[in-house]
Amino acid sequence: MILVNGQPSNVIAITDRGFQYGDGLFETIAVNNRKPVFLFQHLQRLLTGCRRLGIPAPRTEILIDEAHRLCQQTNAPAVLKIIVTRGSGGRGYKQPDTIQPTRVLSLHPFPEYPLRYWTDGINARVCQTRLGANPALAGIKHLNRLEQIIARAEWQDNQIQEGLMLCGDGFVIEGTMSNLFLIKDRKLYTPDLSQAGIAGIIRGLVLSCGHGINTAVTLMTIDDLLNADELFVCNSVIGIWPVRLMENRPIPVGPITLQLQAWLHGLQDENAHAEN
Amino acid sequence: MILVNGQPSNVIAITDRGFQYGDGLFETIAVNNRKPVFLFQHLQRLLTGCRRLGIPAPRTEILIDEAHRLCQQTNAPAVLKIIVTRGSGGRGYKQPDTIQPTRVLSLHPFPEYPLRYWTDGINARVCQTRLGANPALAGIKHLNRLEQIIARAEWQDNQIQEGLMLCGDGFVIEGTMSNLFLIKDRKLYTPDLSQAGIAGIIRGLVLSCGHGINTAVTLMTIDDLLNADELFVCNSVIGIWPVRLMENRPIPVGPITLQLQAWLHGLQDENAHAEN
Repeated sequence: MILVNGQPSNVIAITDRGFQYGDGLFETIAVNNRKPVFLFQHLQRLLTGCRRLGIPAPRTEILIDEAHRLCQQTNAPAVLKIIVTRGSGGRGYKQPDTIQPTRVLSLHPFPEYPLRYWTDGINARVCQTRLGANPALAGIKHLNRLEQIIARAEWQDNQIQEGLMLCGDGFVIEGTMSNLFLIKDRKLYTPDLSQAGIAGIIRGLVLSCGHGINTAVTLMTIDDLLNADELFVCNSVIGIWPVRLMENRPIPVGPITLQLQAWLHGLQDENAHAEN
Repeated sequence: MILVNGQPSNVIAITDRGFQYGDGLFETIAVNNRKPVFLFQHLQRLLTGCRRLGIPAPRTEILIDEAHRLCQQTNAPAVLKIIVTRGSGGRGYKQPDTIQPTRVLSLHPFPEYPLRYWTDGINARVCQTRLGANPALAGIKHLNRLEQIIARAEWQDNQIQEGLMLCGDGFVIEGTMSNLFLIKDRKLYTPDLSQAGIAGIIRGLVLSCGHGINTAVTLMTIDDLLNADELFVCNSVIGIWPVRLMENRPIPVGPITLQLQAWLHGLQDENAHAEN
């Protein structure tokens, strides 16, 4: 089921600027126990994105109501996607004087990933496709995703689960669909996203988790990754996946990754069972 | 009238990757005498873009046929827009194993620009929003256009017709909706687009026009623009507009710009009246 501005539909106007120019934002949210997990954090990022792009945000109550309506449709784990665009109108790139945003909420089956991706870890490679640096768009989850698409098209080997992307200056930013953390000497590091990348919800939670683990946002090279004690990727759907092979070089699935995985699992569970 | 995969429609599937990710390309083509002007050059760029993004291109005969069908709808000057996307399917950024591209052709009224933009020139400013450098996407007219949209939203003053955009490294690339040429000592210069920007059809024609005018593709700074003998912007809809004010600094509307404008006008006219 898909809701377009609150009405069931599976189509959008050709004139919608989301289709014409990728002029909008999205969120991808895990659904558990018929509840959208970390919904408020996702809505917060969506509103931040709307503010940065100058799109009037849909009312939060409406988004929450529609999200819950959709999540009632299934008992199985699922994924809720929210898209907000600048709507139709304007002349070329110039936005209309009065913006009527479009909101699209859709529910999708949870992807069938093998359990071992969580327990034993995944295999990651380094993509050739680079991310363009642009502070004006960095951090937000906007609809301009060609860089990720051409990066993801670099490999067909289904033994590789994620590709890591560098910025033009050679620093590591993120995975095609995930954020990245490395652990070195019991400290957590994740790339700086001021120039490129999406500031993920799980990334934000991990950065603020406490647990006596120090965290730092830094510039990071491929060498830093290859010399890490532990390495993991994260996003709202997969949670945390340890990286066990990086460009075919083994990396141990270590205690801090497993500790964070357990902590996140508890937090997700708590969130999915809270009354909201 | 809009044709979606050959059928009249004004909507597109929510699942279309053009809407989900901006995963596609477009062309904007002037229509004169019920004919799409420089259609073959536009189709050539579209096919190049498809090849670079790995989208199987729609058959050229079909695109030509549908373009002509639409252009028969009006006697007035118009604009034909062709969008090609990767269609629906795939998992997240991963494209589907079998790609069925979507094509959308739509006809729009010609924008009402005052004649003086062509004769007296326009007023241009420099945008704060920068273009991210990415050789993988540079040159093609893809659907990821947020940079242009936020740049165009920087000004409301309708005395300013175009904003010039720099790359992250400070070199000038193009206007929000146009390419840029400067003339210095009777030689034509236009920015290098290997890192960012759209390689426009009119830009390509001007570069190859001959006329005893030497041309060069170079790195270009704002200072170079301010010290130019003449300056103009161009695209397929406007043709050539002289720039008469650059950041409020007057620039003469000079003989080479007017000569190129007349030459281009002849070429457009010839193209619109050719049997094709």
